[in-house]
Amino acid sequence: MELRKDPITRSWVITGDDVTDHSPSQTGGCPFCPDSPTSPQLISTMPSSDGAPWSARAVVHPAPLYRIEGEPSRRGDGIYDRMRSVGAHEVLVENPRHDRNLWNASDGEIERFLWLAAQRIQDLKQDGRIKYISIFKNHGAVAGQEYDHPASQLTATTFVPRRVLYELRAGRDYFKQKERCVFCDIISQETQQNLRVLEMRGDFIAFCPYAPRVPYEAWLLSRVHESAFERYGLSHPASLRDLAALLRRTLQRIRTITENFHLVLHTSPNTLHRSDSLDYWKTIDEDYHWHIEILPIIAARAKSYTFKEVYYSPVTSETAVKRLREAKIEG
Amino acid sequence: MELRKDPITRSWVITGDDVTDHSPSQTGGCPFCPDSPTSPQLISTMPSSDGAPWSARAVVHPAPLYRIEGEPSRRGDGIYDRMRSVGAHEVLVENPRHDRNLWNASDGEIERFLWLAAQRIQDLKQDGRIKYISIFKNHGAVAGQEYDHPASQLTATTFVPRRVLYELRAGRDYFKQKERCVFCDIISQETQQNLRVLEMRGDFIAFCPYAPRVPYEAWLLSRVHESAFERYGLSHPASLRDLAALLRRTLQRIRTITENFHLVLHTSPNTLHRSDSLDYWKTIDEDYHWHIEILPIIAARAKSYTFKEVYYSPVTSETAVKRLREAKIEG
Repeated sequence: MELRKDPITRSWVITGDDVTDHSPSQTGGCPFCPDSPTSPQLISTMPSSDGAPWSARAVVHPAPLYRIEGEPSRRGDGIYDRMRSVGAHEVLVENPRHDRNLWNASDGEIERFLWLAAQRIQDLKQDGRIKYISIFKNHGAVAGQEYDHPASQLTATTFVPRRVLYELRAGRDYFKQKERCVFCDIISQETQQNLRVLEMRGDFIAFCPYAPRVPYEAWLLSRVHESAFERYGLSHPASLRDLAALLRRTLQRIRTITENFHLVLHTSPNTLHRSDSLDYWKTIDEDYHWHIEILPIIAARAKSYTFKEVYYSPVTSETAVKRLREAKIEG
Repeated sequence: MELRKDPITRSWVITGDDVTDHSPSQTGGCPFCPDSPTSPQLISTMPSSDGAPWSARAVVHPAPLYRIEGEPSRRGDGIYDRMRSVGAHEVLVENPRHDRNLWNASDGEIERFLWLAAQRIQDLKQDGRIKYISIFKNHGAVAGQEYDHPASQLTATTFVPRRVLYELRAGRDYFKQKERCVFCDIISQETQQNLRVLEMRGDFIAFCPYAPRVPYEAWLLSRVHESAFERYGLSHPASLRDLAALLRRTLQRIRTITENFHLVLHTSPNTLHRSDSLDYWKTIDEDYHWHIEILPIIAARAKSYTFKEVYYSPVTSETAVKRLREAKIEG
């Protein structure tokens, strides 16, 4: 696995010839249930309050796209860029029970999962090589769900994904002009217009964005300005219960439309140890605002394509060209 | 239907509550076969040389997302932007025969389809309201294919799609630094390294890009520098035959891997009548380079999401919020 970028799309793409079968082996049972003999390496555990062995936990992804050892060794390849796929790839097991997902677990359980997510981000931001931490959930076969067990994924990367970078720039551009946070202004307009608000709960608001990229897209934002989810979560523990309830209820709503969705937590990038951080991210705490995006997938006639954070291609272009060259064709 | 943009994603999204059933009515037979009684309004025809009624033709899309009448009337909605979905939405029927697609038609037939495409772009660029013309083909159910008959689609929009805008900026940034076209430099490196080249034919090269966004992604470029496909095509009629053959052969290769793909023609934006055109697109003829991108869809385990030019959402957020509010949920 390595990361590559060309000067046209300017997206980092993770690529490498993937010869292993990643389909979860069901012979050993679910690897994420408590006491599984095939359980992946444990990273962190949230204790349970109701006698369960634990409440949520982070484990190393069984087939990681990024590995924690070494330096990214960014270098040129003619006009292209490449680097090693250094970083972290974790599974955040949301619940010890195989049948309790983010829409049917208790608010306390979801709260502890959110706390775990905040802790993992905070821990990984201590590593100066890491520039961004994404937490996302692909639910449903069409969305690319990998495991039956209720789980989200975490990737920590040595670059900021292009989609996030554009969002950060949008926030910065708006702030430059208005000296206000664009997300706060959106919350203000949505609250006043009350045309697209789903629900408010404690510090939080759920609404359908004005220009939805897919039908039934929903965003969850904190009405309290804060750029970093982990800083908010770890310093407002009581509020996480409200976020848990709002997330659970919003997912219940979405699931009346479709089983398939992507959920992505957007938090601020890691500014630690970046030589350019003081300048480039100077106003990040003022101009950015953490939030959760939910992108449902409606297959029929939507003409809408799915959301993309980082491209992943399990075949290198060298292998692709080889197979395509050898393809039997006519004419 | 209207276009909306928010200051965070900064993508124009076409949205509107779509109550009609667009599934092609099969009762009247194929609307794109010659002499169909349900044939949509004709825009342009390429004559045939072999006795067929025609060789390729452009018709109005039976369920157009954009309509040609009126002004876009761009206006604010608080901090958001909206405008009418003015533009054009056409079906480019590639062949009169229902079973001859871009990989099994004759090179002459494909050449005439490419000539039609070039003519349509040139015609639409006479309209100063139109900023960009996209021609694309979604093939296979997973790719969102709409009709059985061999056909591509054309959209002419009053904005440049975000994905294209980023590409134009990438070309401009590179040119500023090097005073060379980034696409020409890529062709030069690919030709020298010969690691990812699929085939060269006449003026054209087909290769798998260095950082593929999806497995088996392929690009077709002209080795002669030219920013506008239509200008190249209409002034190099003999060369279009080579492009036709290379396209046909590349699609045959792709189809040994998958039936599903997106094909997108990238040409330069319309600089006519733009007040800012002289400045903003000052170097466009030097820094941009038309090309064709083919993005196959490999469902299994690719973790890759599909390419997105313009988002389309057949449900407004106001309706979405209404349905989601009324959804029966627990807790």
